[in-house]
Amino acid sequence: MDRLRGLDASDPLAGFRGAFHLPDGVIYLAGNSLGPPPRAAAARLAEVVQAEWGEDLVAAWTGRGWIEAPARVGGKIARLIGAEASEVIVADSTSVDLFKLIAAALKARPERGMVLTVREDFPTDLYVAEGAVEVLGEGRRLRPVARGDLEAALAPDVALVVLTHAHYRSAEVHDMAAICAAARAAEVWTLWDLSHSTGVVEVDLNGSGADLAVGCGYKYLNGGPGAPAYLYVAERLQPLLASPIAGWMGHAAPFDFAGDYRPGPGVSRFLAGTPPILSLAALEVGVDLMLQAEPAVMADKARRLGDVFLELMAEHCPELEPACPGPGQRRGGHVAFRHPRAKPFSEVLAASGLICDVRPPDLLRFGLSPLYVGFQDVGRAVSLIRRALDA
Amino acid sequence: MDRLRGLDASDPLAGFRGAFHLPDGVIYLAGNSLGPPPRAAAARLAEVVQAEWGEDLVAAWTGRGWIEAPARVGGKIARLIGAEASEVIVADSTSVDLFKLIAAALKARPERGMVLTVREDFPTDLYVAEGAVEVLGEGRRLRPVARGDLEAALAPDVALVVLTHAHYRSAEVHDMAAICAAARAAEVWTLWDLSHSTGVVEVDLNGSGADLAVGCGYKYLNGGPGAPAYLYVAERLQPLLASPIAGWMGHAAPFDFAGDYRPGPGVSRFLAGTPPILSLAALEVGVDLMLQAEPAVMADKARRLGDVFLELMAEHCPELEPACPGPGQRRGGHVAFRHPRAKPFSEVLAASGLICDVRPPDLLRFGLSPLYVGFQDVGRAVSLIRRALDA
Repeated sequence: MDRLRGLDASDPLAGFRGAFHLPDGVIYLAGNSLGPPPRAAAARLAEVVQAEWGEDLVAAWTGRGWIEAPARVGGKIARLIGAEASEVIVADSTSVDLFKLIAAALKARPERGMVLTVREDFPTDLYVAEGAVEVLGEGRRLRPVARGDLEAALAPDVALVVLTHAHYRSAEVHDMAAICAAARAAEVWTLWDLSHSTGVVEVDLNGSGADLAVGCGYKYLNGGPGAPAYLYVAERLQPLLASPIAGWMGHAAPFDFAGDYRPGPGVSRFLAGTPPILSLAALEVGVDLMLQAEPAVMADKARRLGDVFLELMAEHCPELEPACPGPGQRRGGHVAFRHPRAKPFSEVLAASGLICDVRPPDLLRFGLSPLYVGFQDVGRAVSLIRRALDA
Repeated sequence: MDRLRGLDASDPLAGFRGAFHLPDGVIYLAGNSLGPPPRAAAARLAEVVQAEWGEDLVAAWTGRGWIEAPARVGGKIARLIGAEASEVIVADSTSVDLFKLIAAALKARPERGMVLTVREDFPTDLYVAEGAVEVLGEGRRLRPVARGDLEAALAPDVALVVLTHAHYRSAEVHDMAAICAAARAAEVWTLWDLSHSTGVVEVDLNGSGADLAVGCGYKYLNGGPGAPAYLYVAERLQPLLASPIAGWMGHAAPFDFAGDYRPGPGVSRFLAGTPPILSLAALEVGVDLMLQAEPAVMADKARRLGDVFLELMAEHCPELEPACPGPGQRRGGHVAFRHPRAKPFSEVLAASGLICDVRPPDLLRFGLSPLYVGFQDVGRAVSLIRRALDA
């Protein structure tokens, strides 16, 4: 434990732990599913409800900056993912944003009808992609290939490749820059789901040449349950794309109630309905907190937390097989292990104060958010796992 | 004022005024745009953030009923609109819900490619419908006709007629039962936007034979800025329709992360992404409050408030031309008047404590929510308008 204590003592992010509301005696390693509330969230929501909504009423839309919230919070998230503020907007859910971008890309490229993806990727993303090609019809198709066959599959009929940047089960991370380069050479656009990346893995959308991206607000961004999602459209593509959901907030002049639809400038055209201000306010608190740290420092600590977790597990719990990249390897924000009775085992852990999550049939996931998980937490977690295995 | 005092004294809904947080000295007649916060909203949000999210963390999804919230709140809204609980779900925004239902209806009826609507209807709904037919392609089209030509336009190529039940400008209300009957005779499905109706106009979806509907949560439902919307699918249509946005929450078993998409039972298949729990919690407070009143009593009071408003305006402010159905006529929850400089005039009214809203170029709208507007408020509002006209 001395080594872990030393790591915590020299951790530049150690001070963030106190900014979160977490129950006493709990080691929370499920932030890859739902991040905990920043302490500031409750006060901010009370302010929005009582001072803004309650006192200013409908005038708060302009007077309190509600109407700009999707662009404002999007601009902040942009700094976490290597994008310009003008390229990111907060809107809807990850599923809806994925649908909008897939449909927009296919409509913009009528000569290419194929959406390429990796078979083992997040099933949810595949559902949405499958649904989108069905709705658009006219010969569009989804082609899921094995991870290793991706580059070879960048054929001239492919409009778009949709990829989960960090994998929700294995925590494997695609090489974004390399895939973007290969895709660009084949004139294929790339769409990245950053839900398991932002805040724990370095993401450089502009530097990688990524075309499109989406991500969720409720995992490592700590934006609250079902927080709105964000979407990214590279500046060069913005004039070429139209949202399939021509909602009023994506109109160039929403309050004119004009008879014809003129899409708004830049990424704002991907807004649809009225933004959910209460959920957005909580998300902004989470994002503001994260912006106080450096993305590279967060990614570095997340990787080291994972390395230590894997090393300690190999030493103390060798009977649990790791199911993620090993120490020193590129990895998302969680580590994963197989257990034949993962669900009841996770319940034993929860009863002892260690919260993780499970993906069927046999996967235990331990999320390692660098903002509120410390190295000694990892040490204690492995002790609790050992104890549960012995019980 | 004696007559108005008497009307307030015998108002069965007078007790609801105290359940809302409204600034002192303000007459709030913009609830047709954004309802004010129920007093219980702040405490409920604090509970969700601190006790549910903060203490139970990810376990709150099942332990605190978050996962059922879209169906639970939908089931409550169903009681306000003459639907079964199994026919209504809270999801996304009105724009996204409209898109989902229009696209689903068109895909289910490949032999009919036309969407019919009324040219003067809510532009936002028309934008979404226009966008949906474009995305679906294959000859789908939107046909906007004049209000009086609707029934004659129910041709054999029409899949769906999309209508705003109560008009956002004129407060005119379509005869839902008559239009549904005519549409059914022509085998055309109906999709109603109830955003300006629910809570102020009696709506009986099942009794009218309506097929599909959407509505927003932030107007008369007092669910908060950008509150999630709801959608209705008549039970008989549920097995025939698939959402174009095949999101994970609409899957029959979302937590299996299965490779294939199986739409959930009933209306749940129209869920897309993870529901925004904070915004949903506020919406539920508004809906719960409204459920303490009878829909027919609310509609009756809203109509009488409008009648009194129009009568007093005719008497005291005859130079302002009404732009809505007159006393005794079917009308939505607001009254409307023309003013050549509507925007600056509304600012003069706001400075005197009367909040209304404006739609370009020349429309003043006064929303008359039966839960927190009284008859004496209407009298005072007309006095303030008179004073502003004289100034």
